[in-house]
Amino acid sequence: MASESNRVEPRILKGFQDLLPAQLLPRKEVISRIERIFQRYGFSPLESPALEYLDILLGPGGEGANKELFRLQSPEEEDIALRFDLTVPFARMMAQYPDRLKPPFRRYAIGPVWRADKPGPGRFRQFTQFDIDVAGSPVVSVDAEIIAIMCAIMAELAVPDYCVLINNRKVIDALLEDCGIVSLDQQKHVLRVIDKLAKVGEENVRLELGPGRVDESGDPIPGVQLSPPVIDRILQYVAITGASRAEVLDRLRSFLPQSPHAHEALEELEEIDAALQALDISETHARFDPSLARGLDYYTGPVFEMILPTAPQFGSVMAGGRYNQLVERFKAQPMPCTGMSVGLDRLLAALDCLGQVQAAATPTQVLVVTMGKVPRNETLRLAQELRNAGFNTETYLASKKKMQMGNQLSHADHYQIPVAVIIGEDELARGEVSVKDLREGKEAREDIEDREAYRQAGKAGQVTVARSVLIETVQKLFT
Amino acid sequence: MASESNRVEPRILKGFQDLLPAQLLPRKEVISRIERIFQRYGFSPLESPALEYLDILLGPGGEGANKELFRLQSPEEEDIALRFDLTVPFARMMAQYPDRLKPPFRRYAIGPVWRADKPGPGRFRQFTQFDIDVAGSPVVSVDAEIIAIMCAIMAELAVPDYCVLINNRKVIDALLEDCGIVSLDQQKHVLRVIDKLAKVGEENVRLELGPGRVDESGDPIPGVQLSPPVIDRILQYVAITGASRAEVLDRLRSFLPQSPHAHEALEELEEIDAALQALDISETHARFDPSLARGLDYYTGPVFEMILPTAPQFGSVMAGGRYNQLVERFKAQPMPCTGMSVGLDRLLAALDCLGQVQAAATPTQVLVVTMGKVPRNETLRLAQELRNAGFNTETYLASKKKMQMGNQLSHADHYQIPVAVIIGEDELARGEVSVKDLREGKEAREDIEDREAYRQAGKAGQVTVARSVLIETVQKLFT
Repeated sequence: MASESNRVEPRILKGFQDLLPAQLLPRKEVISRIERIFQRYGFSPLESPALEYLDILLGPGGEGANKELFRLQSPEEEDIALRFDLTVPFARMMAQYPDRLKPPFRRYAIGPVWRADKPGPGRFRQFTQFDIDVAGSPVVSVDAEIIAIMCAIMAELAVPDYCVLINNRKVIDALLEDCGIVSLDQQKHVLRVIDKLAKVGEENVRLELGPGRVDESGDPIPGVQLSPPVIDRILQYVAITGASRAEVLDRLRSFLPQSPHAHEALEELEEIDAALQALDISETHARFDPSLARGLDYYTGPVFEMILPTAPQFGSVMAGGRYNQLVERFKAQPMPCTGMSVGLDRLLAALDCLGQVQAAATPTQVLVVTMGKVPRNETLRLAQELRNAGFNTETYLASKKKMQMGNQLSHADHYQIPVAVIIGEDELARGEVSVKDLREGKEAREDIEDREAYRQAGKAGQVTVARSVLIETVQKLFT
Repeated sequence: MASESNRVEPRILKGFQDLLPAQLLPRKEVISRIERIFQRYGFSPLESPALEYLDILLGPGGEGANKELFRLQSPEEEDIALRFDLTVPFARMMAQYPDRLKPPFRRYAIGPVWRADKPGPGRFRQFTQFDIDVAGSPVVSVDAEIIAIMCAIMAELAVPDYCVLINNRKVIDALLEDCGIVSLDQQKHVLRVIDKLAKVGEENVRLELGPGRVDESGDPIPGVQLSPPVIDRILQYVAITGASRAEVLDRLRSFLPQSPHAHEALEELEEIDAALQALDISETHARFDPSLARGLDYYTGPVFEMILPTAPQFGSVMAGGRYNQLVERFKAQPMPCTGMSVGLDRLLAALDCLGQVQAAATPTQVLVVTMGKVPRNETLRLAQELRNAGFNTETYLASKKKMQMGNQLSHADHYQIPVAVIIGEDELARGEVSVKDLREGKEAREDIEDREAYRQAGKAGQVTVARSVLIETVQKLFT
């Protein structure tokens, strides 16, 4: 046994979180609803381990080196690390099991990922990703199905106001090509700057596309060094909007050059628009937004992200796009992929803010409470009867000195258990039992220390019934 | 893009496993059934991170040092490690959140744990634990409820033959005390030897309790060096059986000395027996077994494990017991605990062996298949109609050259999708659709490469119906 002197202080790592029932219960509910939608659209689950070889995560050219990894060594002294996303392991599995995972293959996955970043509010070093990906189809109608899934999730979660913003990396490439911006580094830099439009405003974007600027803290932000006419053209491009997807398409058609890249990009957007119509996705719920850039390098075609117009502060709660070259890190065979990731923590925070999360501190529905000298086995019998009838039932079994009524009821209050089934010596003798709706008259019961005081307190929501009608009496409180 | 020369070989770490849909689907089903039982008995979920401070895992006296940990450093250069079980983090949380997790508290948890052991068949370095624990009650009726949960799980999984073996660490302590075996090291050694009874047989146990022996490989196994009369007494003890829990109790009562330890041990077993009766657990499903020792040091009271008499090769598929001193590593306050852990991998292997696992390679129920020049959007429309009616529906959207009928049907075969909804140009023109039960006549369809051959092949289980009755036609195949 540990003595005072050599006790370990209970504490959690910086940037990590423990999840308690009040956080976990709505989370589990949302996960299971989303999982149902994924299966509804023909996706199957896959699971990979938390640890991978370092070179799998970094890629052959060290593409993943910008990720802050938790690195360690295997017992065989190989370099390994905790995965930083679920997409690289998925690409690894598609390459590793060609006979079992024949394309086109639709998979979903949920699990923790780790990043050794600087933690901040709502920014953790371990967080959950919940992804779908389709491997082995170059058809952008699949991207439209993924957008339909994003919408189906919001419908399932009873959120009426949502919008998927859609663009195509190829549209931006066609524009940049037309502007003579051909170096990959410069292209990436432009994408990063465009991505900041909503955050920093047009004037700052103009400076960052040109000579650069100094931010609020006095730090210099280097610019892309583009000429004013090119900057104008980019800013005209990102300002393109329309009342419908068709209208945005028309405007893009007249804005973009007559190049093969532009032609292909517009064709893809047309197919997505037609597919979204076939899938019955309204103009309100899916918009073409030419300003959507999404920083990630590996997107090669359509990109999309979902925003909540009534909770814009949460940013994008789901996002994804087409990436046609990731599996090729592992296998000499083209394997076009598209997918999206649910930002579970952000989504839950947004749902909470919108009042769409059913708060529950416990799955328990009934606490069996005893008064006076009732044998423990009576508690067990009552609880088992309730459980057999389908009620989540907890027994309160503590040492004798903690078995006062007050302790038991404050336990129910603390964990917000909605119903108590109460049995005392008298009830036991008469073959009766009391059923109390604890959601009623909560205040009246506070600070009750003994049985007499309890009896004198308001008996709001309490009935005493024959033991034979216990189940139907409890049933009424849950309908 | 990766070129041939700098591709990374797709591979998984030694001792780790990827889980594919055929493994994951029954696993998820079993997990969700067990979770329902845990909630039914009043347990709430908790989740802790994968990484903990090293001293939390090792304990103040380095108690956990015998565990092979995956160790690493935090970005702040602290010593951290991947958790090796879910019980230590639970104890840490009980100590860390006294205001929120007020005892008695019942929690369940599921998640991966890691051990850097030598891997072997069915023995992985990352595996899933699925635990329940009750903190803050010294009452052994709670242990009986946990035994009832173990039984309820098997009933839920439709396994008729199961048995929970029950003992009490205090019974063995009373015996050892009576035999004059008082040093903790010697006591642990005796427990370890008793635990091997079923595996190595009585004669070898006799040798290991005495002078030691040489095993099959020629390695010496040191003995406990007990005297023959003491060994006899221990062997008489472990041989105690009875037709009922009461009978075993009677025999233990006359066998054990009249010491306070023995008295307390027997009283606890009596309470458990009475509680099991109140919980309606039969003699077949819960037996007292004095030979059950369970090696783990930290058990302090009742111990229990579930075996499957019709699949004994899997050993114990769930096991647990009372441990009253773990939380005290972190907090100067007694916090008696009891709990049990489901060995998910073993349980699934046993269920599979008993034919109790419903094999499914995919959650998808329907594949939409096209013949000839049917626009993609027709596929999407049909799929969406089926999804809205509640069917898990996949579309097959590949590049044009992979859209032959044969590719589509072999996709359905490969992933064992049970039903195809087929639409061709003719059906489309006539407002019709074909529905095919793929579970029928599977062989006849193999190696079909084109539409004509398909038409000539047996149309077992296929009907062509008006588009308006599609849903009811599919419905009939799933009832």
